[in-house]
Amino acid sequence: MTTTDRRDFIKTLALGTVSATSLGAIDTASAEVKAGHAGSLISAGDTILFQGDSITDAGRSRPDADKPNHQKALGNGYAWMAAAQLLVGMPDKNLTIFNRGISGHKVFQLADRWEQDCLSLKPDVLSILIGVNDIWHQLSGKYDATVETYKTDLLALLKRTKKALPDVELVICEPFVLKCGAVDDKWFPEFDAFRAAAKHAAEEHHTVFVPFQSMFDEAIKYAPPEHWARDGVHPSPFGAQLMAHEWVKTVSHARHA
Amino acid sequence: MTTTDRRDFIKTLALGTVSATSLGAIDTASAEVKAGHAGSLISAGDTILFQGDSITDAGRSRPDADKPNHQKALGNGYAWMAAAQLLVGMPDKNLTIFNRGISGHKVFQLADRWEQDCLSLKPDVLSILIGVNDIWHQLSGKYDATVETYKTDLLALLKRTKKALPDVELVICEPFVLKCGAVDDKWFPEFDAFRAAAKHAAEEHHTVFVPFQSMFDEAIKYAPPEHWARDGVHPSPFGAQLMAHEWVKTVSHARHA
Repeated sequence: MTTTDRRDFIKTLALGTVSATSLGAIDTASAEVKAGHAGSLISAGDTILFQGDSITDAGRSRPDADKPNHQKALGNGYAWMAAAQLLVGMPDKNLTIFNRGISGHKVFQLADRWEQDCLSLKPDVLSILIGVNDIWHQLSGKYDATVETYKTDLLALLKRTKKALPDVELVICEPFVLKCGAVDDKWFPEFDAFRAAAKHAAEEHHTVFVPFQSMFDEAIKYAPPEHWARDGVHPSPFGAQLMAHEWVKTVSHARHA
Repeated sequence: MTTTDRRDFIKTLALGTVSATSLGAIDTASAEVKAGHAGSLISAGDTILFQGDSITDAGRSRPDADKPNHQKALGNGYAWMAAAQLLVGMPDKNLTIFNRGISGHKVFQLADRWEQDCLSLKPDVLSILIGVNDIWHQLSGKYDATVETYKTDLLALLKRTKKALPDVELVICEPFVLKCGAVDDKWFPEFDAFRAAAKHAAEEHHTVFVPFQSMFDEAIKYAPPEHWARDGVHPSPFGAQLMAHEWVKTVSHARHA
């Protein structure tokens, strides 16, 4: 199915009913989606791939994309910061780290480029942060879909990934926003349903969930939302470093699937 | 002794002989200055104080200095980033975190303001990053002292601190430079002797040592020195986040003294 076909298909979907009833259940101890904490998800020699949208992309160099462990290839965001923490902190692990996030992308666009930008790289650890455009572009009238589309597309992408790479360790990152900049009341409660859908996908696959929204909800006690992400969506270096810390901490204390 | 007296005193000191012979012994596993790794140095209810020079200061607001856990009071550098990681990651710990670094300061200037900017705050955990100005201002002719001055002053400051606050947990941070910007060959090998002096002080007090130079020596394999600190001395947000990660990691895995 091409992107155009997919867009048409999406447009034919009836608007799903967004339910916020189960949202209270999104807790902060989300590393515990996997029962127990028996060590790092990352092993020596692993290939780690960060996938997502602009938050992951963060200005990475396209010509350098195939150079692992290279700052320009990894961008300036949380993916690079997490990579730097891992590479510098564990030089003996001989990790190979890539970033293939692309600004503006939604789940179906990841699916469209999944063969070349994920499966062919054969990651041992695959981190996915996707969802904010799936709602943002809908709110701005650029994309005709619902949270059900997001949920269905994400589950399908994960199923496809596990079929092609049965041993891959999945890391599902929670979509997040800060209530400032471009993010106003129109985003809620639907945005919470996107978060719940990402958590559901992590639970379905018994995989790690990185609770970025819970983290930022705590962070705004110490500095205003704009400090962490001026437009409410794209993290500042301060937001990105907190994400990198959370990602590394969660992945370091997760049990292998 | 006032600052002026102290400067005069320093000027009377004979130039010490800088030895680089023991520098190879500065290893990367420096958290192991303390034997064993039995848990975090940080306990519930602790007051944590970051002390140092401009690298610690990082634009912190002087009027807000007495507000703990407050971004403006903590600046924009590694101290704030480490504080944010701790505060957001461990809300149940009820930590109280201050920053009292001041740009341009050398050890004797910390000593001059130690009562009000350290002892009176009664920190449970005290982190000190100092030394780069002790050599830089000497190289630029603004300060007449040697590495022996640094070593003597630092040991005296730590002894005074432990006398006033016997239960304080000390965290000695390794002074560091990146070989770019203001940092040229004139800095070496003397700068290595400053690092060794800081490590010696940590060993003398059986305390934690955070190996920032070793960390940056590894970091430049993945991005050029300028990426981490444009002028070779003051970290970029990328350098600061790596420092915060290293600080939190080291302190989290150190055994109580």
